[in-house]
Amino acid sequence: MRMSNLLMPTLREVPAEAEITSHKLMLRAAMIRRLSAGIYSYLPLGIKTLQKVEKIVREEMDKAGAQELLMPALLPAEAYQASGRWEVFGPSMFKMKDRYDRDFCLGPTHEELFTQTVIDNVKSYKEYPMTLYQIQTKYRDEGRPRFGVMRSREFVMKDAYSFDLNDEGLNESYKKMYDAYCRIFTRLGLDFTIVDADTGAMGGSGSQEFMVKSPVGEDGIAYCDDCGYAANYEKAECIPQEKPSVEGELDIEKLHTPSAHTIEELVAFMNAEAYNFAKTIIYKADDKYIAAMVRGDREINEVKLKNLVGCIDDLELAEPFKVRELTNAEVGFAGPIGLDIPVYADKEVAMMKNFIVGANETDMHYKNVNINKDFTPEVVADIRVIEEGDTCPKCGKPIKTAQGIEVGHIFKLGTKYSDALGLKYLDEDGRSKTVTMGCYGIGVTRCLAAAIEQNNDENGIIWPVSISPYQVVVIPVNNKLEEQTALAEKIYDELRTNGVDALLDDRNERAGVKFKDSELIGIPVRIVVGKKCGEGIVEYKERRAENSVEKTVDDAVNDVIEYINSNI
Amino acid sequence: MRMSNLLMPTLREVPAEAEITSHKLMLRAAMIRRLSAGIYSYLPLGIKTLQKVEKIVREEMDKAGAQELLMPALLPAEAYQASGRWEVFGPSMFKMKDRYDRDFCLGPTHEELFTQTVIDNVKSYKEYPMTLYQIQTKYRDEGRPRFGVMRSREFVMKDAYSFDLNDEGLNESYKKMYDAYCRIFTRLGLDFTIVDADTGAMGGSGSQEFMVKSPVGEDGIAYCDDCGYAANYEKAECIPQEKPSVEGELDIEKLHTPSAHTIEELVAFMNAEAYNFAKTIIYKADDKYIAAMVRGDREINEVKLKNLVGCIDDLELAEPFKVRELTNAEVGFAGPIGLDIPVYADKEVAMMKNFIVGANETDMHYKNVNINKDFTPEVVADIRVIEEGDTCPKCGKPIKTAQGIEVGHIFKLGTKYSDALGLKYLDEDGRSKTVTMGCYGIGVTRCLAAAIEQNNDENGIIWPVSISPYQVVVIPVNNKLEEQTALAEKIYDELRTNGVDALLDDRNERAGVKFKDSELIGIPVRIVVGKKCGEGIVEYKERRAENSVEKTVDDAVNDVIEYINSNI
Repeated sequence: MRMSNLLMPTLREVPAEAEITSHKLMLRAAMIRRLSAGIYSYLPLGIKTLQKVEKIVREEMDKAGAQELLMPALLPAEAYQASGRWEVFGPSMFKMKDRYDRDFCLGPTHEELFTQTVIDNVKSYKEYPMTLYQIQTKYRDEGRPRFGVMRSREFVMKDAYSFDLNDEGLNESYKKMYDAYCRIFTRLGLDFTIVDADTGAMGGSGSQEFMVKSPVGEDGIAYCDDCGYAANYEKAECIPQEKPSVEGELDIEKLHTPSAHTIEELVAFMNAEAYNFAKTIIYKADDKYIAAMVRGDREINEVKLKNLVGCIDDLELAEPFKVRELTNAEVGFAGPIGLDIPVYADKEVAMMKNFIVGANETDMHYKNVNINKDFTPEVVADIRVIEEGDTCPKCGKPIKTAQGIEVGHIFKLGTKYSDALGLKYLDEDGRSKTVTMGCYGIGVTRCLAAAIEQNNDENGIIWPVSISPYQVVVIPVNNKLEEQTALAEKIYDELRTNGVDALLDDRNERAGVKFKDSELIGIPVRIVVGKKCGEGIVEYKERRAENSVEKTVDDAVNDVIEYINSNI
Repeated sequence: MRMSNLLMPTLREVPAEAEITSHKLMLRAAMIRRLSAGIYSYLPLGIKTLQKVEKIVREEMDKAGAQELLMPALLPAEAYQASGRWEVFGPSMFKMKDRYDRDFCLGPTHEELFTQTVIDNVKSYKEYPMTLYQIQTKYRDEGRPRFGVMRSREFVMKDAYSFDLNDEGLNESYKKMYDAYCRIFTRLGLDFTIVDADTGAMGGSGSQEFMVKSPVGEDGIAYCDDCGYAANYEKAECIPQEKPSVEGELDIEKLHTPSAHTIEELVAFMNAEAYNFAKTIIYKADDKYIAAMVRGDREINEVKLKNLVGCIDDLELAEPFKVRELTNAEVGFAGPIGLDIPVYADKEVAMMKNFIVGANETDMHYKNVNINKDFTPEVVADIRVIEEGDTCPKCGKPIKTAQGIEVGHIFKLGTKYSDALGLKYLDEDGRSKTVTMGCYGIGVTRCLAAAIEQNNDENGIIWPVSISPYQVVVIPVNNKLEEQTALAEKIYDELRTNGVDALLDDRNERAGVKFKDSELIGIPVRIVVGKKCGEGIVEYKERRAENSVEKTVDDAVNDVIEYINSNI
């Protein structure tokens, strides 16, 4: 592609709308433009990269024996009503009516549709196992779309669904997808971690996430370098850690604690440690209220709590007026004693002695509280967020934590959808059995952002060769010197003849602009035709290399081809 | 692909939902399944064909110098409000609100978005000309979605937009797209006709449609085999044809014509010819009413009438109550005399003498009516539908007519959108000028249906090699004979090694089922491994050929490769 013909409006300034590196660079490198919150157009460099990612995903899915099909994005309500998800998705589903007042939505995920496709089209048990996939545009009306294509409202996903006769079959299908995902993310040039994930309200018997570690990731992951354990925060089991406390069981005392609403204020006021307190937080779980308790230095993991409570829709902090009503106090003084709602206490709380809690009375706390003596929680369980230094649940060594970008998710669904929709088969003996399913997602557009987060420097993107929009750029330093432009053209032609996806920077721009753009848009190799072009010498520079190297034209061309082939 | 792994639920019965051949065959050949009115999923054979069509379109667009990008389908209302089309599209646009109550729609076409993209990203006149395109999913809430993917509510379109400094530039860009379209439809194996089209309410200076002649086409086209003239019905100019009538101007007479409401009934009742009558039809044009007159043996072309009247929204038949109110008579007796709304008369009506019209009185007609003596129309113009045998407006020979499927449309938009949205540039002298645009569409999904309409027989589809989901199928007659399966596998491997997109029918089915399926799904070449396999002889059959031919394995493989290469 000649850059004089390329719509490539690179930006020197960092756009105000962007917070994270990949978002900034996708805007600056002329890959995307924002049309509305969480809705983007792809400019030529963006769509080219996206298509390269899609191609890798498609090749590996096909190689794994999955079959591609394509579902609509616009779906009739009935498709989601039988599974109950028409309601479950709530405001995150885009809903509309057609001209005849029938309900439609934009598909956020397609379990129901694939299940129904198999019900309608597969007649014999002999046709199983079967894995179907699509690369398709999905829609979620995120409350807070952000970070460019990382969390957007219209995005491309690869979703696959496996259909098996039994659990052994599911395990095999799952393993094939696991392996395919490893190949895909490796080919995409991503440094990824596979973590155990929570199966949550979906049911199912196992689930793993493919995470790209990154400070901008929105998911927490806990991992152990010693034994290889890795799980997301929701799944990571917390081993209770004991902290020092006063011996024996002292008598409970009520204290006046004026204007101490937070743990920090209390710690200062009472001259204690945060771990001497137990926090009590009131939640609304669907349409009932509950209290959750963790040690003062810990945080509640709301997903763990939600699963424990068995919430269908949403678990959220109780409204302040409701907290006042339930505790008879201002917000900040809730405690378990005398509270008329179920109390869910973290395992660590059950280990505490003589601790401090809110007294359900404004400006008052209790000290020397002891469990089973002063109050009895309904449930004791692991409901906290794991922390750096926690004990690895597998080997006991100290755990590490990091933030991760979820780029893939594989899930043993089991029979949730096949039961709900009636996907059965008759086995060899004529007995009716339920098909067991797995589902497997890759956030295709998100992979672009993740790849950039892991591959960039102060000058711009550093594309992995496999997904770079172009593999090499040929730059004549001075467009007005025919000697240079002619040699640049020759190299460009030769590269293209050899199947290299090459750019020729034939723009009437200063060399500095060309260099800056080539680095910003992240092209893996650059060949500069400059002063020594009369001697047949050009400058060869790999994007990751510190400096350029002088080479003969032939060497440069051969080295590009070799570099591309060994890195793709 | 091994057919034992292929989700290919072919149907022996013709599904009740399908009316036309391509729709029936796409269902029977397991290409698509209906999810809702005008909304389909693509099964593996369908998506494979769709992708082949997309690939051809993409290659030719790139070759023509167009640049690919990708717009969202979910669009904020503002994108269409500045051009006024948020209202114009009416009920055919899917509209919705997001969780914050902001208006969105699903894009039916993207002129506004591309124009805005150029406004936002192109800074200098030096960057023009520029042609941008996308292959993208579009949405139209059709009142009567029908014929499978021919007229559906979610469909894939290639839409391109050219941006030029002036009309000469536009003409060149238009010509490039014209040429690219010719190459695309030729490569798709379509027998197409290019017709002049009406530029309608869109304004613009020229427009052509690429039509596939077919009895199921929804567009009428008029063409002349002598001079090559071709136009769609809306554009085709009708040369008025004189018919015999009584000489001189007789005196008008009112007649009692009980229960003669239609032309046929009147012809019988009055012993006249249909061409002795002039029909008067009352229309609602936006919010006013008009009358339109054509000769009794002609039909009104509502698009011509709509353009003539200058309708913005809709031209439709007036409601019966309104007809009664305007004519003071039952429906069926409207006439121009004494009518208090504008009368638009066809040119042929202006040539008639002593003709018959409704009398605006139930059961009454006038005879011996003469224009300008008994009434004066506001406008005389060409508002009728051209007919077989009409005079060619170019050479005067008799015209032919046919139905056509519109697969492509190219359009010199001019400055309609650039004016509305403010797409300007500063020329070399610093003067502000408006960019001139063209738009170019291909109905990608519709091409599949059009190709099938033109390429089928009683046994199924006959795919052009270029877009067939697979190019050849290898069938062992008896799966239980290892000799046959082994040779079939060998041929299959050899074909694939040579880059042929091959199917192996390794299903445990009777030979008859395999043959029927291979014909139904339209694979261009079939190699059958049967009784003579021990001698290295197989049966080779091209889908279009009457009979199969015995060949050695080597010859068969070579002939497949040659056939594919010479037909792709």
